[in-house]
Amino acid sequence: MQAVILSIGDELIMGQTIDTNSAWLSERLADLGIMTLYHKTVPDDATAIVLALKEACALSEVVVVTGGLGPTDDDLTRHALAAFLKRPLDLHPPSLERIRAFFKSLGKEMAVINRIQAMVPRGVEVLDNDWGTAPGMKVKVGKVLVFIFPGVPREMMKMAERDVFPLFQNNGDSAVFTEALHTFGAGESTVAEQLGDLMRRDRNPLVGTTVSQGVVTIRIRSEAPTRMLAQKQLAATVKAVEARLGVLIFGRGGETLGGAVGKLAGQRGVKVTTAESCTGGLVAQMLTDEAGASQYFIGGWVVYSNAMKTRELGVPTSLIEREGAVSQAVACAMAEGALRQEAVDWSISTTGIAGPEGGSSGKPVGTVWIAIGHRSKSGISTQAECFHFPGSRTMIRDRAAKTALNRLRLELLK
Amino acid sequence: MQAVILSIGDELIMGQTIDTNSAWLSERLADLGIMTLYHKTVPDDATAIVLALKEACALSEVVVVTGGLGPTDDDLTRHALAAFLKRPLDLHPPSLERIRAFFKSLGKEMAVINRIQAMVPRGVEVLDNDWGTAPGMKVKVGKVLVFIFPGVPREMMKMAERDVFPLFQNNGDSAVFTEALHTFGAGESTVAEQLGDLMRRDRNPLVGTTVSQGVVTIRIRSEAPTRMLAQKQLAATVKAVEARLGVLIFGRGGETLGGAVGKLAGQRGVKVTTAESCTGGLVAQMLTDEAGASQYFIGGWVVYSNAMKTRELGVPTSLIEREGAVSQAVACAMAEGALRQEAVDWSISTTGIAGPEGGSSGKPVGTVWIAIGHRSKSGISTQAECFHFPGSRTMIRDRAAKTALNRLRLELLK
Repeated sequence: MQAVILSIGDELIMGQTIDTNSAWLSERLADLGIMTLYHKTVPDDATAIVLALKEACALSEVVVVTGGLGPTDDDLTRHALAAFLKRPLDLHPPSLERIRAFFKSLGKEMAVINRIQAMVPRGVEVLDNDWGTAPGMKVKVGKVLVFIFPGVPREMMKMAERDVFPLFQNNGDSAVFTEALHTFGAGESTVAEQLGDLMRRDRNPLVGTTVSQGVVTIRIRSEAPTRMLAQKQLAATVKAVEARLGVLIFGRGGETLGGAVGKLAGQRGVKVTTAESCTGGLVAQMLTDEAGASQYFIGGWVVYSNAMKTRELGVPTSLIEREGAVSQAVACAMAEGALRQEAVDWSISTTGIAGPEGGSSGKPVGTVWIAIGHRSKSGISTQAECFHFPGSRTMIRDRAAKTALNRLRLELLK
Repeated sequence: MQAVILSIGDELIMGQTIDTNSAWLSERLADLGIMTLYHKTVPDDATAIVLALKEACALSEVVVVTGGLGPTDDDLTRHALAAFLKRPLDLHPPSLERIRAFFKSLGKEMAVINRIQAMVPRGVEVLDNDWGTAPGMKVKVGKVLVFIFPGVPREMMKMAERDVFPLFQNNGDSAVFTEALHTFGAGESTVAEQLGDLMRRDRNPLVGTTVSQGVVTIRIRSEAPTRMLAQKQLAATVKAVEARLGVLIFGRGGETLGGAVGKLAGQRGVKVTTAESCTGGLVAQMLTDEAGASQYFIGGWVVYSNAMKTRELGVPTSLIEREGAVSQAVACAMAEGALRQEAVDWSISTTGIAGPEGGSSGKPVGTVWIAIGHRSKSGISTQAECFHFPGSRTMIRDRAAKTALNRLRLELLK
């Protein structure tokens, strides 16, 4: 089975927005054994959209379209679909009610122009949007199944999960199961070397790697004549990958580093605090992005100024003057100060130069000291390590926060 | 003049890599008055590439292709170009020498497989690659100018800057300039209503809207026979949009809400602190994502537990017991406590239920109290407002943090 992914939008064609929907849809369809023939992006132009639909329907069996369902005059996907199908646009009253209710839940009145979002070409199936205003659509064109979704990634993903992928779960002769294992702390080539022959291209399950924001993910795709066999194969390969990578792996599927730390802290019944300088709240944010974080995270400090490091965490002014704010001594004093302030088990501290300004030859941009503080029966101990992260300010902060979380994870695993 | 952008690669079509090249190329071409008809992504398949080239050359005047020039068996763009042109692949000795020299500069020997990267279809112009191995190519097909570049963004960008854009600098027909104005606090339909006739589809400059994570962006595209006229028109429309939307607009281009608050705080010479509960560090993170944040942001607290709200910010236990942690009184006490703790001008506090658990009928998931504290000559004052944000935990936290920043921005504008 073959698919075509279309994305609609002047902002995409003008390069003001990068299309991430097509990649996401292709990846998920590939997991189900459906190969994507091509992605095509066209502007908010009814003629261009109609032509793109014609081409896609002539060449594939599944067409997924995203974008152009907004309430404004430049959103023309529903008009183009109507023109392509040669059917009129009808008002779909239940969708109008849903859109009204959506605005009401936000304490707002629906604007008049949103009415257009409840219009669908006659005979087209409406796919409810529980996460925004514009409903999706589904229509069979000859033998081709066409889906239309809003361009907002979150809404599109939720609707595709509910309305597209389940249809192809057991499509045809073979079953496909996939797993993603996430690692942090080693580069892609190191991970690949450790995986060795598991990554052979003729192997089933197929093992590949992708990198995103410092996280190297091992993607495993198992295909077999039966579901049971595909799952069994998958489990065996997951085990083999785990045996080779060990503690490099922090989670699976949708799991994050913050979540992995939280899970371990919960299991061990310990509580955590943070004392951040260069990461500016990012470590706390990653920890609290997980539901239930209050069970192990009490809170923390963002001590961005030196004065605040001293006043709130008791880092001696003289120490900052002597060693500099970006130093082993200050990182340790921050981690220790946090534990003296709040009687919990573990603390994480970060202090560094995120740039683009502020670097020197001795401490270039990207230099970050990360300390872990621990309170045990014998008292408070701290240990710090220095890292040099490449890239932009955003990248340096992201890697620093993840490295800090990963260090605590490895401590909790001991 | 119209362009088509093609990108080649299994990793793109499988969704393992997101195509950023097409957006970048389109944006740069639009600035030169060349409109992109469509982007198309096809797999590493010679037939698919040939078909894509045929379609592109039939419809446009400029075709830019990226990807598929690597040294391995799945890199087929040069073979496809040869097939499309019906010409043989010849070795281009100067390119072979360059590739050898490139490896030598890295202290490495060129591998045998890299020899293929010096092969080009007969009669095709070679574009030197000073930043990697594979040279680019340029060929005229009828009236259509076709460029082929490596898929590595850095190499592609450098080569396009040198070999493509200068050709169209004064390309006669028309010049295009664009601007993006970002708003927060009103939905897309409200913004559209306020813009009214400025959004007419037959208008030049063209005005459209897009939404991303709560930010509604107004995109303006001005086209005119000369650069000066296009710029003049653009400036007039920007002014008209600003007149209609007023303080809803917080920034342009790459500017963020955190950056807008920082800019205003810097201009007014005031300092800011944060006291976050449900946003868990996100407000601080957004403020410190901007370089130079230390000029106006001293740091803040993530007081996730009630005990920490009391110990660090002096929020009375009795108040939390009586009103609940998610309440106007506690939001104000947090904002006030932060200002009592650190002698700065403004504070932001957040306390709410980010979910998915923890909601009740009186305080459902998404309920967030946001307070702004201000120290003036007459003392400390606070004011809080209650919001109900829809969506997931991540979305509720994101909107709460942005709303908090936006409230401070509006205060600073007074």
